[in-house]
Amino acid sequence: MSKKNRLIYLPLGGAGEIGMNMYLYGYGPKGDERYILVDTGVTFPTMDSTPGVDLIMADPAYIAERADRLEAIFITHAHEDQIGALGMLWPRLQAPVYARKFTGALAKAKMEKFGQDPKNVKIVGAWPEMVEVGPFKVGFVPISHSIPEASALAIDTPAGRVFHSADFKTDPTPLVGEPFDPDLLKEVAKDGIRALICDSTNVFSQSAGRSEASLSEDMHKLMDGASGMIVATTFASNVARLKTLALAGREAGRQICVVGRAMNTMISTAIATEVLSGFPPYLSAEEAMGVGRSNLLVLATGSQGERRAATASLARGSYLGLELKKGDTFLFSSKTIPGNEVSVAQILNQLAEKGVRIIDDSDGRYHVSGHANRPDLEQLHSLMGADVVVPMHGEYRHLREHAEVVEGNGGVAVVAPNGTMLDLTSGKPKPVEFIETGRVYRDGTVLIGAMDGIVRSRIQMALRGHVVVSVLLDEKGRSTDDSWVEVIGVPSDPRLSGGLTGQLEEAVDRDLASAGAKTLKNDESVEDLISRTVRRLCNDTVGKKPVVTVLISRLEG
Amino acid sequence: MSKKNRLIYLPLGGAGEIGMNMYLYGYGPKGDERYILVDTGVTFPTMDSTPGVDLIMADPAYIAERADRLEAIFITHAHEDQIGALGMLWPRLQAPVYARKFTGALAKAKMEKFGQDPKNVKIVGAWPEMVEVGPFKVGFVPISHSIPEASALAIDTPAGRVFHSADFKTDPTPLVGEPFDPDLLKEVAKDGIRALICDSTNVFSQSAGRSEASLSEDMHKLMDGASGMIVATTFASNVARLKTLALAGREAGRQICVVGRAMNTMISTAIATEVLSGFPPYLSAEEAMGVGRSNLLVLATGSQGERRAATASLARGSYLGLELKKGDTFLFSSKTIPGNEVSVAQILNQLAEKGVRIIDDSDGRYHVSGHANRPDLEQLHSLMGADVVVPMHGEYRHLREHAEVVEGNGGVAVVAPNGTMLDLTSGKPKPVEFIETGRVYRDGTVLIGAMDGIVRSRIQMALRGHVVVSVLLDEKGRSTDDSWVEVIGVPSDPRLSGGLTGQLEEAVDRDLASAGAKTLKNDESVEDLISRTVRRLCNDTVGKKPVVTVLISRLEG
Repeated sequence: MSKKNRLIYLPLGGAGEIGMNMYLYGYGPKGDERYILVDTGVTFPTMDSTPGVDLIMADPAYIAERADRLEAIFITHAHEDQIGALGMLWPRLQAPVYARKFTGALAKAKMEKFGQDPKNVKIVGAWPEMVEVGPFKVGFVPISHSIPEASALAIDTPAGRVFHSADFKTDPTPLVGEPFDPDLLKEVAKDGIRALICDSTNVFSQSAGRSEASLSEDMHKLMDGASGMIVATTFASNVARLKTLALAGREAGRQICVVGRAMNTMISTAIATEVLSGFPPYLSAEEAMGVGRSNLLVLATGSQGERRAATASLARGSYLGLELKKGDTFLFSSKTIPGNEVSVAQILNQLAEKGVRIIDDSDGRYHVSGHANRPDLEQLHSLMGADVVVPMHGEYRHLREHAEVVEGNGGVAVVAPNGTMLDLTSGKPKPVEFIETGRVYRDGTVLIGAMDGIVRSRIQMALRGHVVVSVLLDEKGRSTDDSWVEVIGVPSDPRLSGGLTGQLEEAVDRDLASAGAKTLKNDESVEDLISRTVRRLCNDTVGKKPVVTVLISRLEG
Repeated sequence: MSKKNRLIYLPLGGAGEIGMNMYLYGYGPKGDERYILVDTGVTFPTMDSTPGVDLIMADPAYIAERADRLEAIFITHAHEDQIGALGMLWPRLQAPVYARKFTGALAKAKMEKFGQDPKNVKIVGAWPEMVEVGPFKVGFVPISHSIPEASALAIDTPAGRVFHSADFKTDPTPLVGEPFDPDLLKEVAKDGIRALICDSTNVFSQSAGRSEASLSEDMHKLMDGASGMIVATTFASNVARLKTLALAGREAGRQICVVGRAMNTMISTAIATEVLSGFPPYLSAEEAMGVGRSNLLVLATGSQGERRAATASLARGSYLGLELKKGDTFLFSSKTIPGNEVSVAQILNQLAEKGVRIIDDSDGRYHVSGHANRPDLEQLHSLMGADVVVPMHGEYRHLREHAEVVEGNGGVAVVAPNGTMLDLTSGKPKPVEFIETGRVYRDGTVLIGAMDGIVRSRIQMALRGHVVVSVLLDEKGRSTDDSWVEVIGVPSDPRLSGGLTGQLEEAVDRDLASAGAKTLKNDESVEDLISRTVRRLCNDTVGKKPVVTVLISRLEG
């Protein structure tokens, strides 16, 4: 084994999807590297591929097996896809967690929620402060995004400085949180950047991004012109947007009411950690009851159509006594994340049925993205002047497109999806190893592997239904003619005498009666025989091939 | 009961969703109306609400119960959301089906597929030809849409003429199929239109729609500039688009290959019924093997990411020997229908991994919609000059918005979602009755009701998992200590001794051992007891509350 030190980069999550970010950096001789982990995010389940799952995160197996060499975890900002898995995965990682003040407060809450000691979260200041952990020195470089205190990381190693952009936009006036500051970035880059690991989310957006500050005027006009109650929803963590909305509401003579747990937490944490100031006083739903509806602006969670959030509740009926009526206005100051279109459309229809005026983002007047568009990415590339750009945070097509943008401008780029270990030490980085990566599900209160088959079984039952057969064999292993069949989620057909269940019970009894002694002696053979009969009969009669479970009881001799 | 004749309109499907169109018109005294049904469409299942279902259609119960008074079924055009349910529902309707030639050919195939006599489909000509059925005279008025031979219906009744637009766009040059013809429509409307029942799909699109013909130039440029193989996908029924693509390919010196069953059926039916001419000769996939890849344009089904279609197969690997390589081009000449974003994105990523150049509809150069945008709707409103406009084919928000557009222009509109029976006889139509409507699922080979609980059981198993318990009680109704538990789709926890299954078996045995004789005598009580124990233990140990099925066998005394 070579003793040469090397600097490696290994995305475990986020490079192949939007969400569940988790990036590993290592430095040292091969097989004996010291590590830092950047972000421990989640992504959200879908009925299509993960029914019943609570949360999805990157499988940390690679670093968990080497946890003794993990120096630290860095959290770039407090979005769920950076911070959401911290409390759940920390027991397997057991390393100090570094974050800035607001992010750190939310990280501590994540630790506590899952029974971990929040003292493991260390609050650090922004650049030029640097945290020294093993061979790394890491600084949090303020950068703008749709949450306060978002930071890129300057990661110094003996092989040079890596700049991990994390999620960012190039907003000079983000209203809350630090602006995108080209001078600061030039300073960080002045001695050269070995590699820029760079957000790819919006690489397909061709025009330069707009500033958060650009929304204010239209918001004011909207609030001024509206009669009745106004409800506005956005991402709970977009504290700047909440402030813009609240100030526009105040100026239009409206009292502000904030509903939804996540939004209340974000606002109070932002105020407590001093990243938010000048937010007007606001009411709870109960307090808002005393205010006339045309004097009220309600800020509500649930812009993505989440079933249990305030927005969905208001659309269905009422939320904590608040109720929408004809002539009220509902503002979606948000974009719908792909996959959530149907849930959001359901809410729009419910609001339309109530006669509520709906304002959405279709003309871009009430929402700006938190991610850098293509020209903005090019601006960062140019500011950092890195030897190489490694696109991160994106589906494969985003990573590739981002690399093509870099190459189109004469730069060097490497596409490294999850599991691709790059040696960043020198020259054009090449993959040196491919690590098996995957996903871990929080299912109920347990962490399971995506490949464990548990969720796959659920999907199979959802698609095909489930037939359960209980078989009772006597002391001599003979059929007792007493099989029970339960059919769950498989249709019957009115033309079947005795229904599907009756037909299946008869068929199972027939099977057992005619089976040889050798078959009946062996549980597996019985199971096989019955499963095949059940599937065939279901297919022949109703066109479904259900999941079949056979339970065999044998009377003792 | 009043003997006064009245003209009624009752949407059974399509007014409350986009898809599964089914509209009923009746004329006669209340309770003794004669009926015609317009369209019998399907919509497609989703994992979210209809896992494992094959197709969804409107519940025809209201008219099926009155099938003796159903004079005829009219099919406006051959899209699945107009024609898809015909063969499945016809046995409950038993009325002659009228359609034009191309639509009729496809309607006959739908009948045959489900064992119904295709002779029940009668081919009729376009306006001014009229079909007389009971008190109705119905003419097929050519109108442009994204499928050949799309027709509005002029429905003459003693109470006046109703114009049922069906799906349409206002395209003067649709390339295949008849153009939108203002003079023809004025002629149809010249003696007055009692009610315009009007497509609402694109009411939120603010600018006028573009013509199919406008795509040709960009298609040519694209084909000219591409090296390697080109694959293009669109809706199989968009025969005009297929022709535009094929001609652009031919002019760029490429041979045309058509893959996918639906596309081949559409092209051959369109040629056979003479609605399509000038389509260049085309190859099967096998024949295309002999053609150099840079001389090939493949037209492929599956623009919506359907897993088994040609596009998804090509993205995963190969299809009938065809394989995409780096440098090839893939064109989505289609828009992604809401709900299909994730499936389509998966294909885009797979194509990106292969190094295929992807061209999608993001800049609108390679696709136009088949539906009328807001200004186009206003054009039809104005041409028809109807007493009242009743928006149809749309979610509730589309219907409402469409009504507001009409009212904004000084017209009269009535929003009538599924189940709203309108009396159109005179004056401003008012709802006279609300009919319970619903959905019917084709599940396997059986039709089931959406509220039957079969699909709901499947969803519950998908979300919560399934625990099956087999209990054996002896002759005296006592426990035999021989319970079996099977856990499907519920996670265990490594910290549970014996695993979740072991713990559950112990708990069930404990329950049965301590249960009183009275409980044990009664199956329902035993089931209740065990279900509660299983759910509680699962919740306490792994945080899931599974579906529980208990099978009880009793030994005979």
